[in-house]
Amino acid sequence: MSQTSEHPAVQILKQASDQLDAFFNSLLGRCAGAPMTLLRSIHYSLSAGGKRLRPALVLESFRACDGSPQRLASAQAAAAAIELIHTFSLVHDDLPAMDDDDLRRGRPTNHKMFGEAVAILAGDAMTTMAFEVIASDADPALIPILVRELAAASGPLGMIGGQVLDIEGENKCLLLVELRELHRRKTGALLTCAARMGAIAAGAPADTLQQITDYGGHLGLAFQIIDDILDETSTPEQLGKATQKDRHAGKNTYPTLLGLDESRHQASLELDQAVACLAPLGARAESLRQIARFVVEREV
Amino acid sequence: MSQTSEHPAVQILKQASDQLDAFFNSLLGRCAGAPMTLLRSIHYSLSAGGKRLRPALVLESFRACDGSPQRLASAQAAAAAIELIHTFSLVHDDLPAMDDDDLRRGRPTNHKMFGEAVAILAGDAMTTMAFEVIASDADPALIPILVRELAAASGPLGMIGGQVLDIEGENKCLLLVELRELHRRKTGALLTCAARMGAIAAGAPADTLQQITDYGGHLGLAFQIIDDILDETSTPEQLGKATQKDRHAGKNTYPTLLGLDESRHQASLELDQAVACLAPLGARAESLRQIARFVVEREV
Repeated sequence: MSQTSEHPAVQILKQASDQLDAFFNSLLGRCAGAPMTLLRSIHYSLSAGGKRLRPALVLESFRACDGSPQRLASAQAAAAAIELIHTFSLVHDDLPAMDDDDLRRGRPTNHKMFGEAVAILAGDAMTTMAFEVIASDADPALIPILVRELAAASGPLGMIGGQVLDIEGENKCLLLVELRELHRRKTGALLTCAARMGAIAAGAPADTLQQITDYGGHLGLAFQIIDDILDETSTPEQLGKATQKDRHAGKNTYPTLLGLDESRHQASLELDQAVACLAPLGARAESLRQIARFVVEREV
Repeated sequence: MSQTSEHPAVQILKQASDQLDAFFNSLLGRCAGAPMTLLRSIHYSLSAGGKRLRPALVLESFRACDGSPQRLASAQAAAAAIELIHTFSLVHDDLPAMDDDDLRRGRPTNHKMFGEAVAILAGDAMTTMAFEVIASDADPALIPILVRELAAASGPLGMIGGQVLDIEGENKCLLLVELRELHRRKTGALLTCAARMGAIAAGAPADTLQQITDYGGHLGLAFQIIDDILDETSTPEQLGKATQKDRHAGKNTYPTLLGLDESRHQASLELDQAVACLAPLGARAESLRQIARFVVEREV
């Protein structure tokens, strides 16, 4: 924990997190008049913290692409929207019919606090709110592409499709190439989308957008490999959620397929490639490099 | 059934339904590469038919507002999007943690066919697809407002908020004014949104949009009152889903609060008001009048 808290990326993530907390409070204010149970359930999961990695990626990718102050509102809307989508996916993922988790970020899961029905509806509501935030707060010229990016990364070909692959892969022995594809969708799509939306909000040219996209792809894979490793090697107290769950659920992970050492090596290779993608962006992309290192070096 | 099948609105609804079926097939084609289980689950619920009332409202409202052929693609995208949102809400509503229904539109519910986890994810995916359709197919100038309309009507202040009120109202005796508010959100918001999106796609002026909005509000209330009545008076064979469920679930309905006769009278009053709102649109709005009459006279 102490090593992680001193990581240079921690300040970057904290900045994004503070901005986001303020934004979410104003967002819930816009929902005045909605049933309080629903708003409390949404607020419960949005305010549970977490690393806030995806919004930080949006904002730092925006900065690395020299986004102008006039365009910042679009990046901030995208940052809030992607955290809403990520949080909805955690709430639904924790449901008894899915991973059946009681603990998330060190607290009872949403359905443990509010019941399954409200948790399902809170997740649904966060999805609609994500698209509403973009359509309300982003530059009108950017709204079509930002909505398309977020919807595609979340939908059948992205995160939600990856979750189905994850369920279907339980108790089957996947090939590494299949596991990689599963991870690319389940986790990678949204992380890549975060980096892309920041670049799009900044108005980055096509070659820069491609570099950012490639960075996001390698980062996403590194993230999921480390997630798999931490699930094996950490205690519930360290992670704030149940651990060794993958193994018990018969899920395919990098450690089960490759062992811990080779998994760490693979994560490190992905990190190197992520950082290499940023070379053309020079010093502007230092925060994105720090985030990538944090993703691999983190202990939670 | 025979009376319903001869209703003049049946042809209007069938036209919308045929257009939609073709659209949904091409939409699922765009998802090629997504897990087949997920696509089958989505297709299962989208192809189950239903009245297709909401897309018909979009298209007929567009026509009543003299929408030009150049703008038709926007109305068609909105029609598909709103049926995706409606269908997702049915799939989630039927889950064991919600209304726990085994039968929908005369067939096993989605989770009975595909399991709860896939049903939850299919509902989630239909939400993202709804916003993606608008952002991909509508006129770029209309995308921000159409996304905002759909998100607001679906979210905490609209349909999803109404579903929470519905759950919270179980086994409590609501005042009529509370029940009206519940219905306005749970069913009315999306029906009103359908009518509004058609008018917006057509580029209707503000006064026409207001007339269409008022029409949608009365239509939505009439629809839900009749739904409540049919739940009381029909057999599962007639409705294609379980009946007398509201009473057993301790839900507040118009018949339990007012009795069947007074409920029918209230529905008829709402119909009159819906039709009256269309007076300034003259003969152009005849299909919208037929739809309103169908909503009150239907037997399924």
